Amino acid sequence: MNMKGTKAQNGVNVDALLAAREALTATPQAAQFRWRATCDWVHGTHSRSTVDGFFGLGAEQKHRTTFKFEADHPEVFASDDHGATPVEYVLVGLAGCLTAGVASVAQNRNIQLRSVKATLEGAMDLRGILGVDADVRNGFDGIKVRFEIDADASREDIEALVAQSQKRSAVFDIITNPTNVAVEVK
Amino acid sequence: MNMKGTKAQNGVNVDALLAAREALTATPQAAQFRWRATCDWVHGTHSRSTVDGFFGLGAEQKHRTTFKFEADHPEVFASDDHGATPVEYVLVGLAGCLTAGVASVAQNRNIQLRSVKATLEGAMDLRGILGVDADVRNGFDGIKVRFEIDADASREDIEALVAQSQKRSAVFDIITNPTNVAVEVK
Repeated sequence: MNMKGTKAQNGVNVDALLAAREALTATPQAAQFRWRATCDWVHGTHSRSTVDGFFGLGAEQKHRTTFKFEADHPEVFASDDHGATPVEYVLVGLAGCLTAGVASVAQNRNIQLRSVKATLEGAMDLRGILGVDADVRNGFDGIKVRFEIDADASREDIEALVAQSQKRSAVFDIITNPTNVAVEVK
Repeated sequence: MNMKGTKAQNGVNVDALLAAREALTATPQAAQFRWRATCDWVHGTHSRSTVDGFFGLGAEQKHRTTFKFEADHPEVFASDDHGATPVEYVLVGLAGCLTAGVASVAQNRNIQLRSVKATLEGAMDLRGILGVDADVRNGFDGIKVRFEIDADASREDIEALVAQSQKRSAVFDIITNPTNVAVEVK
């Protein structure tokens, strides 16, 4: 119950998440997930990725539907712009992760959300990927995320929501900390 | 010309990329890009991101079309699975980046590609994001990428293509090295 004596309705099943936490504390092997994507080259810089199944809770799992994503480079790179750029997909992942986190934490704290909007911007010096200057990195110089949240809570409580979402975000961790990527040719 | 006396047709305009490298060496300020996404919370863990414009070559740029992406958590997390998970979007970005790189490098080396398929898997211990164990990270323990490439080249040359793609990949760099993410509430 919040100050108005009502229960927040953000659409996140926090009871199930808390039960999962209990269950996975008891059976750590069920917590081992493997997320997957496959990607087929189409033409030029255009590729099509498929997201379908994953492994978790000790078994193979399926999404309700198969998700397909087109990636490409834009026309200013002399490409055909058949899809978002790969780096924009990273921003989409970060946005989705932090936003789901805000909703989940708000539900757990009984804060009713009315709207949540995130605006992300990643700066990049293209001289990295073009190999102009070895001192320029290929990836983002940094990413700025700005949340606009309308909720039944004080500014302080809203800032605490966003902070807790970052603390538990998988994609925030992947981007801000090093993750090993092993690439092999079959 | 390759050994068969023909020019590879992979659909990448390498001449334009090499010209861009020349141009951006002379005018580094034009190489400063800013990639963007906006994200609106829908319900529960479901969000919708929009990728539309970006900044580069000293001006605002637009994609040919507006790209929209649904992100959600799966049913095993007590969510509705309205889209790929945020971490799967990261895999899609990595797949698209490395694949575009393979095609670009192959074109530059005059290697004809017939097919390129990448299979990605990111392992994750869910006890991280659930807060079960503070020693378990939120993100991937690691990512494995396996390429299957059918091309008019030796295995050694194909492995060199993949290695060079990694070396110049923006998303590979973002994932394997730390990137600062600044989050603020408006």
